Amino acid sequence: MDPRPGGRQAMIRRLLIANRGEIAVRVARTCRELGIEVVAVYSTADRDAAVLALADASVCIGPPSAKDSYLNIPNIVEAARQAGADAIHPGYGFLSEDPDFAEICVDNDLIFVGPAPEVMARLGNKAVVRGLMARAGLPLLPGTQDPVETVEDGERIAAEIGYPVIIKAAAGGGGRGMAVVPAKHEFRPAYNATRAAAHAVFRDSTVYLERFLTDARHVEIQILCDRHGNGIHLGERDCSIQRRRQKLVEEAPSTRLDPALRDEMGAAAVRGAAGVGYTGAGTMEFLVDGDGRFYFMELNARIQVEHPVTEMVTGVDLVAEQLRIAGGEPLSLKQDDVTITGAAIECRINAEDPASAFAPTPGLLERLDLPAGPWTRVDAGYLAGARVSPFYDSLLAKVVVWGPDRPAALARMDRSLAEIRVDGKGISTTAAFHRAVLNHPVFAAGEHTIGFVDELAGEQAASEGGRPARLD
Amino acid sequence: MDPRPGGRQAMIRRLLIANRGEIAVRVARTCRELGIEVVAVYSTADRDAAVLALADASVCIGPPSAKDSYLNIPNIVEAARQAGADAIHPGYGFLSEDPDFAEICVDNDLIFVGPAPEVMARLGNKAVVRGLMARAGLPLLPGTQDPVETVEDGERIAAEIGYPVIIKAAAGGGGRGMAVVPAKHEFRPAYNATRAAAHAVFRDSTVYLERFLTDARHVEIQILCDRHGNGIHLGERDCSIQRRRQKLVEEAPSTRLDPALRDEMGAAAVRGAAGVGYTGAGTMEFLVDGDGRFYFMELNARIQVEHPVTEMVTGVDLVAEQLRIAGGEPLSLKQDDVTITGAAIECRINAEDPASAFAPTPGLLERLDLPAGPWTRVDAGYLAGARVSPFYDSLLAKVVVWGPDRPAALARMDRSLAEIRVDGKGISTTAAFHRAVLNHPVFAAGEHTIGFVDELAGEQAASEGGRPARLD
Repeated sequence: MDPRPGGRQAMIRRLLIANRGEIAVRVARTCRELGIEVVAVYSTADRDAAVLALADASVCIGPPSAKDSYLNIPNIVEAARQAGADAIHPGYGFLSEDPDFAEICVDNDLIFVGPAPEVMARLGNKAVVRGLMARAGLPLLPGTQDPVETVEDGERIAAEIGYPVIIKAAAGGGGRGMAVVPAKHEFRPAYNATRAAAHAVFRDSTVYLERFLTDARHVEIQILCDRHGNGIHLGERDCSIQRRRQKLVEEAPSTRLDPALRDEMGAAAVRGAAGVGYTGAGTMEFLVDGDGRFYFMELNARIQVEHPVTEMVTGVDLVAEQLRIAGGEPLSLKQDDVTITGAAIECRINAEDPASAFAPTPGLLERLDLPAGPWTRVDAGYLAGARVSPFYDSLLAKVVVWGPDRPAALARMDRSLAEIRVDGKGISTTAAFHRAVLNHPVFAAGEHTIGFVDELAGEQAASEGGRPARLD
Repeated sequence: MDPRPGGRQAMIRRLLIANRGEIAVRVARTCRELGIEVVAVYSTADRDAAVLALADASVCIGPPSAKDSYLNIPNIVEAARQAGADAIHPGYGFLSEDPDFAEICVDNDLIFVGPAPEVMARLGNKAVVRGLMARAGLPLLPGTQDPVETVEDGERIAAEIGYPVIIKAAAGGGGRGMAVVPAKHEFRPAYNATRAAAHAVFRDSTVYLERFLTDARHVEIQILCDRHGNGIHLGERDCSIQRRRQKLVEEAPSTRLDPALRDEMGAAAVRGAAGVGYTGAGTMEFLVDGDGRFYFMELNARIQVEHPVTEMVTGVDLVAEQLRIAGGEPLSLKQDDVTITGAAIECRINAEDPASAFAPTPGLLERLDLPAGPWTRVDAGYLAGARVSPFYDSLLAKVVVWGPDRPAALARMDRSLAEIRVDGKGISTTAAFHRAVLNHPVFAAGEHTIGFVDELAGEQAASEGGRPARLD
């Protein structure tokens, strides 16, 4: 009797997941479905992680601090050796975009599920990537493609491209290492602060400048590129609901795109990826202005937190495609096979207290009732009885729903969020905050921009009698 | 601010769900999504039911015994009046196919979510229905359309249509009130026993006869008929995995149908439903033999336990369509809008012990970890900490998965079933039994028939050194 009737042959036989939380569970599920054995790793803070029940083998890789465990390359590579893994999936965050890690994997005969190390190294410098994308014909926001070395240069360039401008650390990404400068007199302190922060966080103080769009939407294109020269896109995700540049809600399709613009952006994304020799699943992030003009922002060389919305509107298992590509197989589908059906939305439910500036609320999950039912998907890294650790991000669960259209999906998400019940001393969640955002008429009408949540926070503060202020 | 951005106007404003368990939760979820208020009812054994958290109002309708609560028509109608409901959804089982209940609802100005009472009354007699379907041109198994009044008549007719034959109670259904007779000398005792049982259970000893197919698959067509003359079908469900005629696993599409046969059976189902004046969601059950010939069995005038597999391959919310039809609206889609994508499978996870003849194992659910993640849907009526009552059926949760094809869906179901963890003194589940069935090469190859599980049980007993025997 074949124990896995649907199991497909794959070059990868036994895969170590160098991550934790919900993405470790997500990757493990697809591995089990494909007949790939799973090696889970965990820090001593994660002894009760949900992924452990899905693993064929589990290895403790160190104490709670991420630098001693999930960022500890020697420990992870040794765990792979001990457990007999032949491949490593890095998830997102942690080592997922570290070219050194990718290279060390390859040196140790481990398949790294991601692009080639030299491509990752190239992608690490945003200014370099902007140059490559410009050469591939992708539109960029007015700004510098080269580093801005002095504050005087910066002021001159800012005047040329016009305020507001945004100063970005070349080594940053995911919302970190950025500052918006509304007017000339605020440029110098922002420039100095961003460089100092970039140096402190990324050990690289290189920054560049871009025009800052006030009516922008964050729209990203999911791409898949195999090692046989095939590249496709799977449409867009709109991630404009952000709090301080951290995504909170993501949806597909975007209310700002029509089919023609989707095709145009998708083709540009595939062209740009090809131009940098990209392989694997990746995300090309763009800003789209109110007139439907789009501008390349960055290329993320990893599976994204928000990938499930694309899965729900396309029916394509993106992790399975990652594993297929890493195993040397061609993509399982062509561009013409990709169809977008209905609408999907994801809410990132964090263990945070919106009433206390979204401070993390770690603690024991005495009760954890998550939504279920028709067209409701939950990806969580915790089971009831586990402890949310203060050492890592506060993501408790991703709730993702599908509907035949956006209003139906919004109603389903509201119903799903209302089902969440988390009990535990001191633990709060952002579920009610999400419901308020989703039920806001501006969001319901699809007329929000990337500043929406931060503006909403100000609005709420004002309506409560205080002066407008950020939630933190 | 509109609290329900996707809420649609419906004739139904406040709906009482005259049921319990997972189907009560299922109906409540769609109501919430449509902006319809929910009135839950519960017996004193169901004070911790999951549906209560989803309800706008909850009414206790009596003690645990079903006849005093979920079958107590006066109590339910009074609950509807008290709670201000304007409609009643009967779910499945209990009062769902009771024409008297439907009529009493109508007499009390309550919209009954189901066909008209007079149509339900007609459907209650299988022999009458067979006659109506024959007139509508549907193929029937060789057998009697009229009641078989004497054992001598029965023996004569059985000889004409050929053994094996099946004796069915006219008032039966859902696998109850049937007996297969392999050969002539077994006819008389089976006839007498079936009549006696039918009289005891249904207070109607009428029986009829049919040819019994040994290579049959149970294939049923989901239909939707509104009150404006529109009728469509949503393809088939294959429910051939049955233990003693109780469905365990259901899937869509059926491996035995090709598109031409699907169209033919779908058209026949819609024609048959129109012939009896059917409105609402319904299921036309057929047997399909090894040569692709199909035979009408019965029309079920309710939402089926296995409706989610159809939802997952079509994207259509069947409960929403039920509510729309009951509210007097036309169907939201036409036949050409229905497309079947990929494959879906459902497993009914029961709180039963397969090692003890599938005896129910009621008790406290100290821990209840159910599967989640990509394309995995769970419909459950219990939350962790609730008690599975001995008073009702033992259905703990329905696990439903979708995949781009049948092997992918089977692998996903195997992964999902492996995630189930239920702890509680004395509680067992059928999850491991389902995994064994799904991983059997005959099922994996799609070559099983409706006798498969009962034969498998015999096989297993034999391989364990005993003589072939039924599991019970």
